[in-house]
Amino acid sequence: MTYSQLVEEIFKKKSFLCVGLDSDDNKIPECIKGSTKADTLFRFNRSIIDATARYAVAFKPNVAFYESEGADGWRALEETIRYIKQKYPEILVIADAKRGDIGNTSERYAKAIFDHLGADAVTLAPYMGKDSISPFLAHKEKWSVILALTSNVGSEDFQMLSCFDDDITAPQICCSKRGKLSLTNVTEKGELTPLYERVLETASSWGSKDNTMFVVGATHAEMLTNVRKIVPSHFLLVPGVGAQGGSLEEVSEYGMTAECGLLVNSSRGIIYAGNDEYFACAAEAKAAELQKQMATLLYRYSKLYK
Amino acid sequence: MTYSQLVEEIFKKKSFLCVGLDSDDNKIPECIKGSTKADTLFRFNRSIIDATARYAVAFKPNVAFYESEGADGWRALEETIRYIKQKYPEILVIADAKRGDIGNTSERYAKAIFDHLGADAVTLAPYMGKDSISPFLAHKEKWSVILALTSNVGSEDFQMLSCFDDDITAPQICCSKRGKLSLTNVTEKGELTPLYERVLETASSWGSKDNTMFVVGATHAEMLTNVRKIVPSHFLLVPGVGAQGGSLEEVSEYGMTAECGLLVNSSRGIIYAGNDEYFACAAEAKAAELQKQMATLLYRYSKLYK
Repeated sequence: MTYSQLVEEIFKKKSFLCVGLDSDDNKIPECIKGSTKADTLFRFNRSIIDATARYAVAFKPNVAFYESEGADGWRALEETIRYIKQKYPEILVIADAKRGDIGNTSERYAKAIFDHLGADAVTLAPYMGKDSISPFLAHKEKWSVILALTSNVGSEDFQMLSCFDDDITAPQICCSKRGKLSLTNVTEKGELTPLYERVLETASSWGSKDNTMFVVGATHAEMLTNVRKIVPSHFLLVPGVGAQGGSLEEVSEYGMTAECGLLVNSSRGIIYAGNDEYFACAAEAKAAELQKQMATLLYRYSKLYK
Repeated sequence: MTYSQLVEEIFKKKSFLCVGLDSDDNKIPECIKGSTKADTLFRFNRSIIDATARYAVAFKPNVAFYESEGADGWRALEETIRYIKQKYPEILVIADAKRGDIGNTSERYAKAIFDHLGADAVTLAPYMGKDSISPFLAHKEKWSVILALTSNVGSEDFQMLSCFDDDITAPQICCSKRGKLSLTNVTEKGELTPLYERVLETASSWGSKDNTMFVVGATHAEMLTNVRKIVPSHFLLVPGVGAQGGSLEEVSEYGMTAECGLLVNSSRGIIYAGNDEYFACAAEAKAAELQKQMATLLYRYSKLYK
């Protein structure tokens, strides 16, 4: 799926909602359960997909919830994505997998996610650098969604660390000294920026806004102004609205571009909105409520609303 | 598997060899091919495992190579690990998966890798911080193998960045300014350390040497002295010897502890040593050669050699 197709879909549906399919066998209503766990996962997903598709522009199955059921879980994930692509080809499918490995291995992951599963996009961890991401970017009309600033508490451990911001001298200094450096040595050579900014700056140069998105958690909405200085037009995938406490209003105020540039994810808030035989209606109502809010926010902050 | 069981196995076999099962259908000799790709992967792995088990203390299937064959690939991975644990229960199985996600999702990955697949250890990306790793550490007698300094070129992109090393003031500075800071502001407050050192320092405090290892690539062998200042007794998983150019000799000189503390991985160098009907013999010969070198190095640098 291309950038312009995604933008078109957003303004057609007046929604930038991504529905997270974190489908957990333990939380799925009894009435929809199938003969196997894998069957249950697929049946539940199919109901949620049909109930929310008119309000959503993306579905994001979290691979962990399928992998934890082994090969059968993978089969349910394959069936789920095939179902979406056949019935709703205009909807973006993001495999939330947080992969990343050395080049020849990332090629295999890209093959798994894009060719075998048929997803349009995949979430990736940036720690291993450019050659761990490039094999994904090489796939035409597919998306790499790179972690920048995540929504969890642990985002403070490394993503918020201040890094010395100088492309040329920083690695040289590390290598030549084999250890710690006192700051006085480099006082006049550069600036400090948080690691997540460095990831945005560096990783946005590997591809373009047509094949790269970044994950920025809604729990850090106030930092979106700063994020937009670095990546003014890339799409951002924003988790953390709802169960994790982020605000849709703030995310839109600080993060929306003229062409929207946001995909806001809600998982648990939608798919477990109900737990009886009306679970799909409850999910639909929740998705519709979010879409309504999103329409207002698109009207207020974007430029393409008609 | 416990730390002392692993050390015992190393000195019994006089080996710290980890055989990487990066099994690629395109490179597997014709003679071993089965009726399906999944069958081929398992048949090949079984031959390699039987040929190298007496020289190895760990097997490391790289999950990407199975995932890229979808649900059938997962089945082959399940069968491979089951085969190792049934026939060679004393050998550590590391699922090379490079996972890491928010807490409730990492719990699912831990379930997938430890409970469903039955692996003893898993490789993890540290970018999302403590709560992305803790669910793995909660599993008794299982191992989290955290990426610190990887063997690929991209390791220079972020892992070598100089970070401001001050637990308390660094995040405060980032948040309060919402942007860049000139270094003069913090000159007297701390020191700069490469990000990978910061990962070693921080992540080693989440668990202990009994449940945590770190990945340090052999292509950075000269940095192992420094790594050992931070984690003097943790096991290190060292990829990059062989195909990627790292030196076993240097890794042992700079990285070995009294109790060894190293698992050196070789994948392509062993499993594709031959490509005809004698591929298993070729793999065995290559593993035996490495084990012989390792015995000499254990004699020279460790303290438990008898």
